[in-house]
Amino acid sequence: MGLIVQKFGGSSVANAERLRNVARIIAETYRAGHQVVAVLSAQGDTTDDLIDKAMEINPKASKREMDMLLSTGEQISCSLCAMALEAMGLPVVSLTGWQAGVQTNSAYGSARVKKIRTERIQSELDRNHTIVIVTGFQGINKFGDITTLGRGGSDTSAVALAASLKADLCQIYTDVEGVYTADPRVVPNAKKLEEITFDEMLELASLGAQVLHNRSVEMAKKYRVNLEVLSSFANKPGTKVKEVAKNMEKTQISGVAKDKNVARLALVGVEDKPGIAYQVFSLLGKDNINVDIILQSIGRAGTKDISFTVKRDDADRAKELLETHKGNLEFDHIDVDKEVVKVSIVGAGMLDNAGIAATMFGALYDADINIQMISTSEIKVSVLLDEADTSRAVQAIHDRFFDE
Amino acid sequence: MGLIVQKFGGSSVANAERLRNVARIIAETYRAGHQVVAVLSAQGDTTDDLIDKAMEINPKASKREMDMLLSTGEQISCSLCAMALEAMGLPVVSLTGWQAGVQTNSAYGSARVKKIRTERIQSELDRNHTIVIVTGFQGINKFGDITTLGRGGSDTSAVALAASLKADLCQIYTDVEGVYTADPRVVPNAKKLEEITFDEMLELASLGAQVLHNRSVEMAKKYRVNLEVLSSFANKPGTKVKEVAKNMEKTQISGVAKDKNVARLALVGVEDKPGIAYQVFSLLGKDNINVDIILQSIGRAGTKDISFTVKRDDADRAKELLETHKGNLEFDHIDVDKEVVKVSIVGAGMLDNAGIAATMFGALYDADINIQMISTSEIKVSVLLDEADTSRAVQAIHDRFFDE
Repeated sequence: MGLIVQKFGGSSVANAERLRNVARIIAETYRAGHQVVAVLSAQGDTTDDLIDKAMEINPKASKREMDMLLSTGEQISCSLCAMALEAMGLPVVSLTGWQAGVQTNSAYGSARVKKIRTERIQSELDRNHTIVIVTGFQGINKFGDITTLGRGGSDTSAVALAASLKADLCQIYTDVEGVYTADPRVVPNAKKLEEITFDEMLELASLGAQVLHNRSVEMAKKYRVNLEVLSSFANKPGTKVKEVAKNMEKTQISGVAKDKNVARLALVGVEDKPGIAYQVFSLLGKDNINVDIILQSIGRAGTKDISFTVKRDDADRAKELLETHKGNLEFDHIDVDKEVVKVSIVGAGMLDNAGIAATMFGALYDADINIQMISTSEIKVSVLLDEADTSRAVQAIHDRFFDE
Repeated sequence: MGLIVQKFGGSSVANAERLRNVARIIAETYRAGHQVVAVLSAQGDTTDDLIDKAMEINPKASKREMDMLLSTGEQISCSLCAMALEAMGLPVVSLTGWQAGVQTNSAYGSARVKKIRTERIQSELDRNHTIVIVTGFQGINKFGDITTLGRGGSDTSAVALAASLKADLCQIYTDVEGVYTADPRVVPNAKKLEEITFDEMLELASLGAQVLHNRSVEMAKKYRVNLEVLSSFANKPGTKVKEVAKNMEKTQISGVAKDKNVARLALVGVEDKPGIAYQVFSLLGKDNINVDIILQSIGRAGTKDISFTVKRDDADRAKELLETHKGNLEFDHIDVDKEVVKVSIVGAGMLDNAGIAATMFGALYDADINIQMISTSEIKVSVLLDEADTSRAVQAIHDRFFDE
């Protein structure tokens, strides 16, 4: 008996049959005696269809009007889901972001939740014992205009609601059954984790394990919202994300992740004088290009090479930008390699366990895979590899940690 | 230089091209120095598509959730229209019903506008010199829930906004060029009226000339909102609807209308005692069956016949209802004729012009058309005819008044 926030993504509500399935999950939870707030995304491709409509009219439409347009997607899925619950004879009400009191800043298209005024939801839950369906992804700003939280925003909506309502659990229903030790499509013997810590989840999310949006995990960690990732298609427990997780299998790491949205740039023949690295990275930072792994090496006499990775989409822009400042920066030329992949291991266990990085490197060495760059954090080791080696590398690392 | 409210119906905004056309009309009005508030319906078949989606999920969905669902239609068309105006470089903002301050009662699906809090619109118009696009058909009730005004509600939204904003003119753009002396599809030589009075428009609307929704005309009359009906596809003046209209062609009537949504019932052999008519019509009234023309005639010795018309859809229900009370009402049997039509002439000129009804009857007599029932009001004469005679009757009457 508690308050459970359940979030259902676009594929979980894609058509009438799936909406009915979602309604069944909500109904079961409600009938088990819980209060339920369900947060829904727009149906399947609705958002993309609406974007197409806008592009046809005005490819440079203001974000304010885009938000006005896109927010209809969740309003449709939520009202339909409420109707499905009505058909089961259950008390239910659907609420838009503004009706649910989701107040955001005014960054149309990528708004941040500032506060949720939960009076309406609370009164529906307490006074009317009603199931509440809330549109994900959206809120209202101080001007009374509709804002959207950007892609993945529905996860954030769910966690923010769970935090504001002091929910006992926030379940994120998606099309995978939980968080795995590696991508099951790449590593067939990957295992579903029973529990994982917020920090591990954050590292995995930022490494391309697209299960949970990072913003939502950060918020869950900050407000100590118990999360569970599970599938709306399989009636099984998923993966719990919490402050401290029990280590199911006494393994040293919780997962292997890959991220192909990466490119390596190398400034070759940089004059070896102070401040160059600062100039390079502040230039990129000003243009909102995030740099991830950085490697500085000695080059020819008196010069050095600076290598770094950026998101693959940013590679050309980064190159262009640096070339326009070639005079200042005094380098010889820029190498760009887009056929790379970042493979990482994540695990809170690393904190008090030396030698984990060495185990990873050993697995790669045994598989004859060359490491281009290395980056480590407290609970993560990442290596940059040739993209062609991705599957072999993930499999080799996974086997070394989980199967030996 | 003034404030103009422009309303565009579903066919006027059906696709990107038409939305651009609507944006051009709005832009021209704005560039001519006017303040513009545009009220839009949902695109083409959007509302019907949404209804289909709901039916698939729950054919008995609550009206509250239906309104939540259906209101997205106008939100989509309005944001797209705003984008089209943005593409022209004009300042514009789209507002939902609740953002525009449209407050209604709580009759989901057929809500009535109670009040419009125009502060937001007024500030956009005055302070920001912005074009305001408002979703038609919808508002918000005292619970903060979305309501819709029912079919034809966008006309009502436009007139209510024009009244609240004290607009100089409310233009209703539709797919016809104005109000005609008869249906141009039936009477090829029908003429477009330059002006018509509210009362004439009301009679025409209730008689099946589906140009303007009756509720909107009533409201326009009450708040003295100058209306103009015109086409979004033809760049021509339409028909002005006002308190006092000049009689363009010095004709005695302003139009001939037909209404096929009618059926005639006859209670045959009713006992000739007091109170029977009262019993019959209060019985029907309680069941929300509206009775239009009534004729009471002497039947066989000691009995009479009561004939009356109802909407065609109500005919079977009316018959059933009366038959279940046959014992009380003491009649012989009920005749139902669904193959009838009501043809009417409307004109403020009738008020001080005797003989107009006779001219109408004469035209029908000369065309050898039999009149089944007659009903008159101050500015209207209606006759009930065999449905097969519809076109010939409308043409004959039209020719007699407009072409001779």
